[in-house]
Amino acid sequence: MTSRVDLEAVEQANTAFYEAMEGGDFETLSDLWLTGDEGDGVTCVHPGWPVLTGRGEVLRSYALIMANTEYIQFFLTDVKISVNGDTALVTCTENILSGAPSEEAGELGPLVGQLVVASNLFRRTPDGWRLWSHHASPVLAERDEDEDED
Amino acid sequence: MTSRVDLEAVEQANTAFYEAMEGGDFETLSDLWLTGDEGDGVTCVHPGWPVLTGRGEVLRSYALIMANTEYIQFFLTDVKISVNGDTALVTCTENILSGAPSEEAGELGPLVGQLVVASNLFRRTPDGWRLWSHHASPVLAERDEDEDED
Repeated sequence: MTSRVDLEAVEQANTAFYEAMEGGDFETLSDLWLTGDEGDGVTCVHPGWPVLTGRGEVLRSYALIMANTEYIQFFLTDVKISVNGDTALVTCTENILSGAPSEEAGELGPLVGQLVVASNLFRRTPDGWRLWSHHASPVLAERDEDEDED
Repeated sequence: MTSRVDLEAVEQANTAFYEAMEGGDFETLSDLWLTGDEGDGVTCVHPGWPVLTGRGEVLRSYALIMANTEYIQFFLTDVKISVNGDTALVTCTENILSGAPSEEAGELGPLVGQLVVASNLFRRTPDGWRLWSHHASPVLAERDEDEDED
């Protein structure tokens, strides 16, 4: 039922979101979130954080995270997309490799691996798919069973 | 822009979801999730868990959780609702008090408090608002600032 065009556009928006984080590109990241009245309703949960609500609060958190991140790379797996009309839900596993700035100028701190899962909610706008909500959380439990992911 | 009727109906669906958990009412809980083709796209993340996808996998997880939970109570705070057409996003803080079955028959194990935040995504159906996605995660970090939540 979902058009291939929609699926591809949503996946591109999702990829652009992580690439903006990797590149420390605050401008692009800001453009990916809903604006105006719709921006008041955006929500974001970073791993281990409480809920942030509204474009202002959400973007401030990203500015803070970017300022404290020297290096970050996301290897996305299990990307699943569900589109319904003008709303799309993407879930994925974020295999994160990141490093904070070192205490010595110009050096990179130790790299840390993190396993996080995310639910990213997008809404269709005249300018493309934009983020309504991002909820990311640490995976703490091991899965008991080997599941058939198809 | 959002009608009061919609807001109330979404809040009721959200409350019904937590009441079903508190009551160990698997039937009601099952009814609250999308069914049919739409049920294939439902997703669920329990605190610390990976993503579960599809009605079957999601409901099995609840059966498992209910079987291992003797007592659970949710005190919801910070409930915020954003409705857009036939989709609604609810975020809330789940102040959870729960107890597993004790090893001694008929007794309740020690009660545990947990601070969790959730993003609950609902879709409007002819039968009312139904869950498309539930993402819950532990709050691990303290918030630095006292924020004005209004």
